[in-house]
Amino acid sequence: MTVAFRLARQQDIAAVAGLLADDVLGQGREGADLAPYLAAFEAMRNDPGNLLIVGEEEGAIVACYQITFLVGLSQKGARRAQIEGVRVAQHRRGRGIGTMLIADAERRARNAGCRLMQFTTNKARHDAHRFYDRMGFTPSHIGYKKTLRGACPPR
Amino acid sequence: MTVAFRLARQQDIAAVAGLLADDVLGQGREGADLAPYLAAFEAMRNDPGNLLIVGEEEGAIVACYQITFLVGLSQKGARRAQIEGVRVAQHRRGRGIGTMLIADAERRARNAGCRLMQFTTNKARHDAHRFYDRMGFTPSHIGYKKTLRGACPPR
Repeated sequence: MTVAFRLARQQDIAAVAGLLADDVLGQGREGADLAPYLAAFEAMRNDPGNLLIVGEEEGAIVACYQITFLVGLSQKGARRAQIEGVRVAQHRRGRGIGTMLIADAERRARNAGCRLMQFTTNKARHDAHRFYDRMGFTPSHIGYKKTLRGACPPR
Repeated sequence: MTVAFRLARQQDIAAVAGLLADDVLGQGREGADLAPYLAAFEAMRNDPGNLLIVGEEEGAIVACYQITFLVGLSQKGARRAQIEGVRVAQHRRGRGIGTMLIADAERRARNAGCRLMQFTTNKARHDAHRFYDRMGFTPSHIGYKKTLRGACPPR
């Protein structure tokens, strides 16, 4: 099996939106209209520090993740890589694609000069926790979220 | 008491580095050399979506935080605001500065079109957890971190 991880292209966005929705937590909060996903992708393409990556196997998109390189002052100005929206297609799980995905993210993070990698995962994703523990991540933090009402339209 | 929250300037960086170091977790991982903090601040200044904010009271820097506006596909392309490096000077605590800081961050997040606010906090910061619960944040996630060895020099 060979999964190639590469930058997403516009024609991949329908598949990525499908992966995001095909998820026990995602199904309630994603939508069928592609327009907002395409708009978000266009905004990401203007930012070289915020990448959407897809895993392709025999012409099919079987995985995706977002990686953002964050500059900040903490820890002597350590650059950190943050991962969001990690998904592996349900019917392709259990074959090591998640492990390859994390390895790809770590390689991209090191190449971008990041000394830390971080992400949050919902407390309900117990299988994911065991996977991330095995991959050498430490569950040292609590991830807080808040929905903001009355946000202005993005410019 | 009036604390004004504003964008950090180069001459504030020594005070911000001091706030980051004057912390039970920060003291072991921050440094006395200002150069890496100034370099990180310069890199942030080139990114309008990644802001260092300071709270100033009677000419003194008494608080700081970093806010980053993240574009991504998840949740119908929801823009999210992420907070890092929240600090209030030890001798100014218990006077509502943290509440003002979060209100300032939420205002900036809404203005930037963000529908979500998120951050992680170390599991050891029990006082902080109670504060964030009161401020309406939900501790729904686990925050995983990993130190990356062999990162390339940032470009």
